[in-house]
Amino acid sequence: MAQKISTRPPSGFRDFFGEEAELRREVIQRIERAYTSFGFEALETPALERLETLIGSSGGENEKLIFKVLKRGEKLDEALNKNSPAEEELSDLALRFDMTVPLSRCATEYQSKIPMPWKVFHIGPVWRAERAQKGRYREFVQADVDIVGSNDLAAETEVLLAAIAALEALQVQGFVLKISDRRLLASLSSKIGFTDKQFEDFAIAVDKKDKLPHEKIIKELKSIEASTNTALIEKLLNSELSLEDCEKLNKESTTSIRSLISNLERAIDGSLKIEFDPSLARGLGYYTGSIFELHHPTEGYSFGGGGRYDQLIGRLSGKSLPAVGFSLGFERLIELLSKNTLGEKKPKVFVPVLDESDRIELTQKAAVLRSKGFQVDIFPDQAKAKAQFKYAETKGYSWNLLKAPNNERLSLEKADRTVQHELSENWLHESLRFLQKT
Amino acid sequence: MAQKISTRPPSGFRDFFGEEAELRREVIQRIERAYTSFGFEALETPALERLETLIGSSGGENEKLIFKVLKRGEKLDEALNKNSPAEEELSDLALRFDMTVPLSRCATEYQSKIPMPWKVFHIGPVWRAERAQKGRYREFVQADVDIVGSNDLAAETEVLLAAIAALEALQVQGFVLKISDRRLLASLSSKIGFTDKQFEDFAIAVDKKDKLPHEKIIKELKSIEASTNTALIEKLLNSELSLEDCEKLNKESTTSIRSLISNLERAIDGSLKIEFDPSLARGLGYYTGSIFELHHPTEGYSFGGGGRYDQLIGRLSGKSLPAVGFSLGFERLIELLSKNTLGEKKPKVFVPVLDESDRIELTQKAAVLRSKGFQVDIFPDQAKAKAQFKYAETKGYSWNLLKAPNNERLSLEKADRTVQHELSENWLHESLRFLQKT
Repeated sequence: MAQKISTRPPSGFRDFFGEEAELRREVIQRIERAYTSFGFEALETPALERLETLIGSSGGENEKLIFKVLKRGEKLDEALNKNSPAEEELSDLALRFDMTVPLSRCATEYQSKIPMPWKVFHIGPVWRAERAQKGRYREFVQADVDIVGSNDLAAETEVLLAAIAALEALQVQGFVLKISDRRLLASLSSKIGFTDKQFEDFAIAVDKKDKLPHEKIIKELKSIEASTNTALIEKLLNSELSLEDCEKLNKESTTSIRSLISNLERAIDGSLKIEFDPSLARGLGYYTGSIFELHHPTEGYSFGGGGRYDQLIGRLSGKSLPAVGFSLGFERLIELLSKNTLGEKKPKVFVPVLDESDRIELTQKAAVLRSKGFQVDIFPDQAKAKAQFKYAETKGYSWNLLKAPNNERLSLEKADRTVQHELSENWLHESLRFLQKT
Repeated sequence: MAQKISTRPPSGFRDFFGEEAELRREVIQRIERAYTSFGFEALETPALERLETLIGSSGGENEKLIFKVLKRGEKLDEALNKNSPAEEELSDLALRFDMTVPLSRCATEYQSKIPMPWKVFHIGPVWRAERAQKGRYREFVQADVDIVGSNDLAAETEVLLAAIAALEALQVQGFVLKISDRRLLASLSSKIGFTDKQFEDFAIAVDKKDKLPHEKIIKELKSIEASTNTALIEKLLNSELSLEDCEKLNKESTTSIRSLISNLERAIDGSLKIEFDPSLARGLGYYTGSIFELHHPTEGYSFGGGGRYDQLIGRLSGKSLPAVGFSLGFERLIELLSKNTLGEKKPKVFVPVLDESDRIELTQKAAVLRSKGFQVDIFPDQAKAKAQFKYAETKGYSWNLLKAPNNERLSLEKADRTVQHELSENWLHESLRFLQKT
């Protein structure tokens, strides 16, 4: 290799190691435990789907975001031999861009094997060929929780309670859950003066409410349809419409919103604020009923969202199945958490090997400590004491298991730095006495 | 969509749900906990690497196994406008085919940020465009554990002890760990009569020992070089060469093998059999010293392997770093485990909703049970009692939290089927009394 290849990850992709990787794994495990405690089951689907599955379900708008995989062998040769092959002819598989399409595919394929309603969580990376920029990545984790096969508001309640339990498990406070209904938004759109055909554009404009000044949005809405009710738009954007105000517009959806908020409030005991927000739009066209979005007062973006999508699975398979889901914004949660920290860490002990002839004995003692719940790291090389302690300091180990050369005694000592630790001195000394006896 | 798209996963790929998905998650968590308890840190790298990184490191032979990702936008147009674009011109990124290349890339890139020696584990899916066949998949999980930056045999010991701890955490017994050294194999190759240039072919032929009859391998070896020492080949293939026999051939490697076996045996207390096997070859050319392979007497294939690869990182970056690693064969372990089962399961309780007006109360009671460690599933739809209990039976729930309509009392009852459960009756009744009070 004459030319040196960059060892950085490709643009828009990231490597994680050390504390950052540890935090990501811990957060995923806590979310999974919360979902599992509600009886949701895991789903794992391949990174690659048929290109036609992804294109067919997204209706074109996501197509340019799809990472497509080149055909292989004869099929590739065949495609390349054409005069000017189209992109689609060169590719048969592609990386999933969300978790909802693979879930919908599985709900169809395994319908007869899965007890319905299917309570399922689906956590993993998704890939989007977006222009890489700060805070926007081409590979990121989504943590979805869904119920397929239930029309009932009980499904909304369960999905949201599970998502709220996940937030509680992460010890993050102060979130606000906004709730509305796509059917109410449609009635508002019509009341304001838009036709059914203009509804999607109306929803997309309103969805920008948190990013753009309201005048800009009103201007955009006016450009879609000049003869609209500006006063009502302003009320909507300023969140001045109450559930009572909306009742006349769409009784079915306000009743549903009212029940859902009441169910949640009685179940969660005030650990999270729940708000009706009729300006909630959720850009995605596939929502058919309830919609939700999770916000945090200190950050200007949402931490997840979801809603009811009763038509999507049918669009894929021809046989419709109602569904409702919530997707936690994993990457944004991680950013919020790295400002705080998650509690309880495993006690970490470093074992320097100051005399190589002690290595076997120290290895055996380390095994005893591990069996008592310690995380124990023996230095895996021959090196001077100074280098070994430098390694331990960089890794943040708070305890050392020491055996001085030519000394029979083992000692477990606090590392020579100010550390926050959760071990009682007593417990440590008991462990040490235990060690010395074994 | 006129044409119906298949909802099966693409050929060679798999979906996992229900118990299978649960087992996979549990196994990964246990492996991670074992590695962590030895002070190994997590590494997460992207699914996609630069195509040139993957091709450059593999030296061509893996190239046809690489899933290549199509370029996008202008760069794709540019490539397509050429008369007959080469495969490489159409692609810039590709799916990783192993964990060792991304690890080596990271070891180079973050060398100054990571305390050395770097004790690291790296678990995740890899992708290979092989012809799909039974037991061979195009997406499968690898669970690697490595130490980068140590020349010392202590690194081999730590890596293997961590892998053995992972097997113990999975409660699988009877494994045999075979140990040898690439340097010894090279000496044997030369003693038998092969030149240095013929060594790779010799190693590849010997590596087939468990799959082909010995006569076939001898024939293959004879076709490489006719004038070879057949008696010695036969002794090698029949595992009739002891460490003592090999001592004269390569003293350095036999000393190292002897120490490693002794270190391991003293540390693990007989939970696993350790064998010297000079016929161990490990097909991969990048090993430079110790080599290992994990076998199980009931299965005819290996459950993982590894060794020391002191040159690979240098080949990628120009600056060499010693390294040793072990890769657990996750998919094969899963197959072995699904024949057995892992112990301890969370107590699972089903909550049918027989009267919708009880739903909120039952939701609150479920939260109390969850806080005591139960997994609790409330039926998330309105349905007849029969349908609800059918759902619970299919999901294998062993306990029901019941509230009969028009009845004040809650009861926690064993599901009407023979179940293996781990809850004491007493504990359950206490939980129930607690529930009734709250």
